[in-house]
Amino acid sequence: MKSVKDIEPIKTVKGKGLVYLIGAGPGDPGLLTRRGADLISRAEVVVYDYLANPELLALARPDAEIIYVGKKGGDHTLPQGGINQLLVDKANEGKSVARLKGGDPFIFGRGGEEAEELIEAGIGFEVVPGVTSAVAAPAYAGIPLTHRSFVSCVTFATGHEDPTKEKSSLNWEAMVKTGGTLVFLMGVKKLKANCAALMAAGMDPKTPAALIRWGTTPKQQVLRSTVAEIGERAEAEGFGPPAIFVVGGVVGLRDSLAWLEKRPLFGLKVLITRTRATASRLAGMVAELGAEPVIFPTIKVVPPDDFGPLDRAIDNLAGYDWLIFTSANGVKYFFDRLFASGRDVRALGGIKICTIGPATAQAVEKFNIQADLVPEKFVA
Amino acid sequence: MKSVKDIEPIKTVKGKGLVYLIGAGPGDPGLLTRRGADLISRAEVVVYDYLANPELLALARPDAEIIYVGKKGGDHTLPQGGINQLLVDKANEGKSVARLKGGDPFIFGRGGEEAEELIEAGIGFEVVPGVTSAVAAPAYAGIPLTHRSFVSCVTFATGHEDPTKEKSSLNWEAMVKTGGTLVFLMGVKKLKANCAALMAAGMDPKTPAALIRWGTTPKQQVLRSTVAEIGERAEAEGFGPPAIFVVGGVVGLRDSLAWLEKRPLFGLKVLITRTRATASRLAGMVAELGAEPVIFPTIKVVPPDDFGPLDRAIDNLAGYDWLIFTSANGVKYFFDRLFASGRDVRALGGIKICTIGPATAQAVEKFNIQADLVPEKFVA
Repeated sequence: MKSVKDIEPIKTVKGKGLVYLIGAGPGDPGLLTRRGADLISRAEVVVYDYLANPELLALARPDAEIIYVGKKGGDHTLPQGGINQLLVDKANEGKSVARLKGGDPFIFGRGGEEAEELIEAGIGFEVVPGVTSAVAAPAYAGIPLTHRSFVSCVTFATGHEDPTKEKSSLNWEAMVKTGGTLVFLMGVKKLKANCAALMAAGMDPKTPAALIRWGTTPKQQVLRSTVAEIGERAEAEGFGPPAIFVVGGVVGLRDSLAWLEKRPLFGLKVLITRTRATASRLAGMVAELGAEPVIFPTIKVVPPDDFGPLDRAIDNLAGYDWLIFTSANGVKYFFDRLFASGRDVRALGGIKICTIGPATAQAVEKFNIQADLVPEKFVA
Repeated sequence: MKSVKDIEPIKTVKGKGLVYLIGAGPGDPGLLTRRGADLISRAEVVVYDYLANPELLALARPDAEIIYVGKKGGDHTLPQGGINQLLVDKANEGKSVARLKGGDPFIFGRGGEEAEELIEAGIGFEVVPGVTSAVAAPAYAGIPLTHRSFVSCVTFATGHEDPTKEKSSLNWEAMVKTGGTLVFLMGVKKLKANCAALMAAGMDPKTPAALIRWGTTPKQQVLRSTVAEIGERAEAEGFGPPAIFVVGGVVGLRDSLAWLEKRPLFGLKVLITRTRATASRLAGMVAELGAEPVIFPTIKVVPPDDFGPLDRAIDNLAGYDWLIFTSANGVKYFFDRLFASGRDVRALGGIKICTIGPATAQAVEKFNIQADLVPEKFVA
């Protein structure tokens, strides 16, 4: 198991910390990049918002400072100016900062603005691109944004306009005339108005359209319709944000290419009642089958109130012939105390070892010890 | 160290293998997703092409079948039809297949076509989106494709047309009129023609433009110019594929936002003359500073011709008082032979251990043994 001291925090030489503008990906925590994961695990401060999957915070150092600056619709916990200042302040304190942004920082992520502020303040930064939800949510819905038989281009646009702008900065007619796939981010609330604008700009009302909510997560919902009807249907079905809106012939490919929903456990929540430390492998298998694992530990393993008896036994190890381990947790506590006493594995020289159950045997194998006896039958 | 048996291969129940269409990312191997890395490490067959970084193949199982189906410009080692058939055949043999595609499989990656073939053949598949080079290469060049002060949309298009199409399927005028950033993939050879088409469609000849070659890798080169002049300059400087072409006001942001080139070792190749097994940590540090690590082992550690003397010493361990390790490799071979003899760490009970050098001490610590003596001075 890795402990804090195994992972080197990011250190800087000039006294100022670096800021990493990291694309957290579209929702599925597996779609975080390896570099993003590495930087989160080493940063001293992690700043995240609404669209970055909070599961990724589990990667952070136990001693990292975790700061939520959520943006949910118009409701900003901390306005952009405050976020910029926070990044500058933490870096000036000499801290390495992982700034997690949903999707990619430079695709409607305001990463450019944050980078400008950092440069102005003399703070070094790096950009770690991420998988944008504009591409990944359609992919999980079985919609390739480009396809040689349909389109040669794809346009990404904001579905909600910057309210400080006086008139629409989108040229709807030009977007329609490109003939390519159109993808709108963050546009659920203005869906009807946007569809009206597309049709007014000449788009065929029968053009296939899809709305993908919570794309790439087990909560993913897809509404497949046409540009003429999807606004009404989204309202009727109470389809809220966050969602990606896709319009174009390629949307029709979903009818055959949808694959996520075909996973055997898609849409189910599976409750896993194990200790947090032992649940992760099972959770991974459940997610692989398309379900959302919910880890709910009904057993919590706590250290004994008094380590005295164990410590005394360790002091007298040489007097024992056999050591019998009944659980992986027992193995963990035994070796923790053994090492804490200043001894190492050599203290077990000459002692036979028995383990109950294969998981217990594996726990012992991690210390490079092959159990001498593993009874074939056992019950918890 | 993980061995083959620690990593479970992907197994399927119905006799047919699954195919994973995996976005390999833009070039920097750190920009592969965690899910992509996991699937490569478990697949029985890995199929990759020109734009997928071959370093990623190091993740594959030692017993995986690795197949190159490269596409370099027009020169296809295996034409698309052959690739499709290969994926189907391997899956029909019951093998799990990781199909690595440069960037994202559904952004001009022909992933949609491969998915259609798989469906037709009754093969299950999954899509693992990747970081597209259309976003990441500009990001590494300090160009955010969107920025609230400049644009509300961005369009991705193919720079080279499908030669089977009769006329240009791109509506150049509409693309220019969107007013958004334009990104062309794979368009170096047609750069001058494409720029002429943009200006003929009404684009201001002074519009900032950039060509990014080998984006996100230590070989990255950026040519910053205008739409009027970049074609000439690219020719003069011999700027070849693979490259991403970006046009729009946001390109000007590079002048202040460029960050990759500011890394202390950017553009350098650093030769690392250690054994492959010990070089990776140093290689990571070198890459972090912006250089390209080239691992060139001048020392190769080979097992002795005859393990007899070591094995006999292990058989008589109880007769020794001290064990002195002089290198991490020595530690590795000692424990390999110890475990191979059917013994485990308990065989060291009662024996004192000395290590020469801190790396050797760390190698011993991995086996949960604290050296009893680590001399303060040592030379290699």
